[in-house]
Amino acid sequence: MSNSIEKQDVQALIEHFNVIRPFNKVLGLSADSMDIENACVYFNMREELLGNSVYGTLHGGVISAILDITGGFVVFLDLFKTSKGTSREKLMERLTKVATIDMRVDYLRPGIGEEFTASGYILRTGSKVAVVRMELHNEENALIAVGTASYIVG
Amino acid sequence: MSNSIEKQDVQALIEHFNVIRPFNKVLGLSADSMDIENACVYFNMREELLGNSVYGTLHGGVISAILDITGGFVVFLDLFKTSKGTSREKLMERLTKVATIDMRVDYLRPGIGEEFTASGYILRTGSKVAVVRMELHNEENALIAVGTASYIVG
Amino acid sequence: MSNSIEKQDVQALIEHFNVIRPFNKVLGLSADSMDIENACVYFNMREELLGNSVYGTLHGGVISAILDITGGFVVFLDLFKTSKGTSREKLMERLTKVATIDMRVDYLRPGIGEEFTASGYILRTGSKVAVVRMELHNEENALIAVGTASYIVG
Amino acid sequence: MSNSIEKQDVQALIEHFNVIRPFNKVLGLSADSMDIENACVYFNMREELLGNSVYGTLHGGVISAILDITGGFVVFLDLFKTSKGTSREKLMERLTKVATIDMRVDYLRPGIGEEFTASGYILRTGSKVAVVRMELHNEENALIAVGTASYIVG
Repeated sequence: MSNSIEKQDVQALIEHFNVIRPFNKVLGLSADSMDIENACVYFNMREELLGNSVYGTLHGGVISAILDITGGFVVFLDLFKTSKGTSREKLMERLTKVATIDMRVDYLRPGIGEEFTASGYILRTGSKVAVVRMELHNEENALIAVGTASYIVG
Repeated sequence: MSNSIEKQDVQALIEHFNVIRPFNKVLGLSADSMDIENACVYFNMREELLGNSVYGTLHGGVISAILDITGGFVVFLDLFKTSKGTSREKLMERLTKVATIDMRVDYLRPGIGEEFTASGYILRTGSKVAVVRMELHNEENALIAVGTASYIVG
Repeated sequence: MSNSIEKQDVQALIEHFNVIRPFNKVLGLSADSMDIENACVYFNMREELLGNSVYGTLHGGVISAILDITGGFVVFLDLFKTSKGTSREKLMERLTKVATIDMRVDYLRPGIGEEFTASGYILRTGSKVAVVRMELHNEENALIAVGTASYIVG
Repeated sequence: MSNSIEKQDVQALIEHFNVIRPFNKVLGLSADSMDIENACVYFNMREELLGNSVYGTLHGGVISAILDITGGFVVFLDLFKTSKGTSREKLMERLTKVATIDMRVDYLRPGIGEEFTASGYILRTGSKVAVVRMELHNEENALIAVGTASYIVG
């Protein structure tokens, strides 16, 4: 058995996570929503994600949920990258310890759009805590919201 | 026509808000979930709110969504209280302008439980911005998460 | 040599911290400013702490600095309390690892006053991270600012 | 009298602000520290800015203070840019209304260095609220801290 982490392994883990995280399905996320190459999460507007059905805007709670999921996803991909050579058991153990400590969300513009992309990047990571920045754009590249979150990573 | 805001009016507004905010229904909120007297929002654990079906914990996104909704509800009740004598039209106009500027959420303990209560209180309010504190407890009164949010109010 | 942590030990440590933290002196803090019993930090208005000499208000930077110091002080007292039986060497080692991960400050009211009291309390603590709430009042008990911060504790 | 805002006017205002903000002088800031072209604030390490004289690191309170000042400076420059054609009286009136609502600071790396540069940019601005991102680098371009803050602008 090889210790190297293959793309299909990440894919398998994402599928696994989507299964054990029912609320992700409520948000319309699937394994296909998680873009490993670009550390992005994609989702489409749906009636039930509306916070205001008159204005047709995303619910603030959907936005904060997606940003938190994206931040966790970024931490997760970073752990994969920095854990080359770690056994899959050890890696899985580390992954289950990842937890959001706190998050700030800034709601910049109304959540209007059809197709949304949430992305993120590591600001700082260490043996205990990672700090991640996240942002949410619509299909016209309007910046709808940003977030900063701290995660326990070990 | 009286200008005074009656309890049934608030109730009517909450029902209205739940209709135009489909995501609230996804979270399991109804007019009955919104406690006007105590500025509380109640909800029950359901399979689809899980963030981890193995541990049986609420999804972080559910927690942040509920805290934001609760903060908005607190602002809304405060506007009712401080707007006595305002015509309902003017009040409705003010209410539609309420928007979250930003929010910090601290995830303190795993979201375990059957019945959750989110509550909040005004830290500071003015003609433009209100700052609100929110917290989420389970039925054993364990403090699961807290939040602080700023809202545009006028 | 006893392992118990005495009040004079805490006092000695605070004095030590004030010596190795020159900026605390700039803010006008001394060992006498740190109230162990009440987890409070006291300081007086001085010309050089002004952010606006026309309005006579504290500089926002003074407020955020004091809140962060107070949060760290609360963590520090909590480690003393929960480390009974730990050798002083081990405790000192733990104390040097305490570091602020992030902090939110809400500026609620103008920083007017002569004597200020900053206080704080633990929201949650564990083996790795503590979350603390802080607040700043003036001598008339007006709430000037609040903060929430996460600290690495081990 | 021309309504256009000249570089020397901004310079004059900065000098004015430094005079009425004594704490800026404590931090070692002068009109020369404020770089209008690049929306940067420069400052040098000094003994009294230390949070830990053993490690030689900036005090966290210095970092949060500088980030808040930088965010306000960015708002201020933005108001100049977007207020072309406004009379100086009206502009000054707008500037005096600028106030920090809240700020999040993430302390990413120890504040080691000799020469520090704080910079910032507008994330979103409107008639009432501006949201700004700030960051602090040392002379080796290490990212020491970042912040996000909301400001009342009108």
